Amino acid sequence: MDTQYVIGMDIGGTNTVFGIVDARGNVLSKSAVKTDLHDDFDLFVDDVYQELNVLITQVGGLSKIKGMGIGAPNGNHYTGNIEFAPNLRWKGVVPLSKLMSEKIGVPVVVTNDANAAAIGEMTYGAARGMKNFIMITLGTGVGGGVIIDGKLVYGHDGFAGELGHICSVRNGRLCGCGKYGCLETYASASGVARTAKEILETQQVESLLRNIPLDNITSKDVHDAALQGDKVALDIFEYTGKVLGEALADFVAFSAPEAFVLFGGLTKAGDYILNPIKEHMEKNLLKIWQGKVKILFSQLKEADAAVLGASALAWEL
Amino acid sequence: MDTQYVIGMDIGGTNTVFGIVDARGNVLSKSAVKTDLHDDFDLFVDDVYQELNVLITQVGGLSKIKGMGIGAPNGNHYTGNIEFAPNLRWKGVVPLSKLMSEKIGVPVVVTNDANAAAIGEMTYGAARGMKNFIMITLGTGVGGGVIIDGKLVYGHDGFAGELGHICSVRNGRLCGCGKYGCLETYASASGVARTAKEILETQQVESLLRNIPLDNITSKDVHDAALQGDKVALDIFEYTGKVLGEALADFVAFSAPEAFVLFGGLTKAGDYILNPIKEHMEKNLLKIWQGKVKILFSQLKEADAAVLGASALAWEL
Repeated sequence: MDTQYVIGMDIGGTNTVFGIVDARGNVLSKSAVKTDLHDDFDLFVDDVYQELNVLITQVGGLSKIKGMGIGAPNGNHYTGNIEFAPNLRWKGVVPLSKLMSEKIGVPVVVTNDANAAAIGEMTYGAARGMKNFIMITLGTGVGGGVIIDGKLVYGHDGFAGELGHICSVRNGRLCGCGKYGCLETYASASGVARTAKEILETQQVESLLRNIPLDNITSKDVHDAALQGDKVALDIFEYTGKVLGEALADFVAFSAPEAFVLFGGLTKAGDYILNPIKEHMEKNLLKIWQGKVKILFSQLKEADAAVLGASALAWEL
Repeated sequence: MDTQYVIGMDIGGTNTVFGIVDARGNVLSKSAVKTDLHDDFDLFVDDVYQELNVLITQVGGLSKIKGMGIGAPNGNHYTGNIEFAPNLRWKGVVPLSKLMSEKIGVPVVVTNDANAAAIGEMTYGAARGMKNFIMITLGTGVGGGVIIDGKLVYGHDGFAGELGHICSVRNGRLCGCGKYGCLETYASASGVARTAKEILETQQVESLLRNIPLDNITSKDVHDAALQGDKVALDIFEYTGKVLGEALADFVAFSAPEAFVLFGGLTKAGDYILNPIKEHMEKNLLKIWQGKVKILFSQLKEADAAVLGASALAWEL
């Protein structure tokens, strides 16, 4: 066969990024369009087509392309649709895979971004050779992608792996989803910021973080302060790692993975976040699993990760 | 092929029950030996062989038998061993499938009892035709068996589905496993008894349950009292159902099952337990899943369920 490339596309609320990827995970070329420019989904598809066509021509035309993988918010693998995505302008059900494959002329497969990341790590990244692992994306929200026996778990309806919405703290923080205490409200970048605000508001302690307006503190600020030995910053990572580590222990009980792969801004905190995650996961594991489950950071270059993850889906076509 | 029967065997702490089963889930014959009679595992295998041989001869000999499925505490599907089972006399690692298949002369497949129950429900019971569901056994403990895409999830090491040991209440009740707050300490028969004791000790309320010594109250007593409208008994089921329903909601976020199948003594309480489970699961589901996930009771006859579950494994050989 002559199809040596795949297309990966990541649809975000603001930007849609796509690129051509080879079997080793090299992103040969990349481009982007604005996601939120058009109310009309057809016009968005036209925009993508125009840009993407240039890239496809550069690698020798459509006959070289095996297919296209798309990571999209509320992307449903089974239907190929985007379904009721709160952060996109297109409301209701959008027939993403149908319209895109008709326009571009290659098969299209769709899933959400965390699931795409899981396939990406298995294909090109930290989970190569693994058959059972769990991807956790720690970004603005918290996403999950569960791999069992080398396959992504989609579940009965295509929406499995919503690990950011398991309950970490009963009656805890209000989540964007309407529930209380979701893991996402503690272990995401905004969760870290909320923890910082809570500690600084309720405790009479000195901290470098007091130099920043309360509502502007980011997880990067917390990391910077931790690097200077700031006690509050270290406490914030300890608490975040505790909540996340406890959740990981429950995930182990469910599917007994070989490893977790963590991706996203929070992983930049390195050992500051990794150590408490490990400690509290271990404390909450059954004896049969203690000392056995690895916690790894993503090995995909951050700038390419979303495109790589989505592209990896297309190899499975 | 002429192999129209399978053997199912359930190894419990006290008794080991086994039987011959046909493809429709009829248990044609059944027998049992004492599990805890022999320190020597070889002598136990001899005992089973003697009894089982009679049953095999009755159905026309070994050539009619496709294989043997065994549900055993800490039974590891990948190795075929019983590994460090706290409630059995055989310590360490017992090569169950190897010794049993050599002795009986048919292929043997091993898993734990909750996993066996899941395969049993899928083959003969409430989950026929389902590809994605979760079995929850509510007995002395709480066990789980997760089916994804029509297959039992064993995980990296064979021990997936330990759903009784996810944390329901942080720093909650001490569990037999050494951890605190495990689902099993609330939603098992003994968990119900503990809840009864806690309520009766800490609240000044009248209850029919006060006629029973505190340490002797069983989940059956609570059911009997509920049938007579006893407020405390109803509160106990409400609380138990709340803890279990909250856990089920998290399981849905993980693998998006079509249904849960509940098995065991606690299900005898019928709507008293089912209604609060449903209510609290629904409250804790993301909107995409509300009103969609079924909660069913097992359809396997209780007396035969363990043998049927184990036997179903052998059809997959």
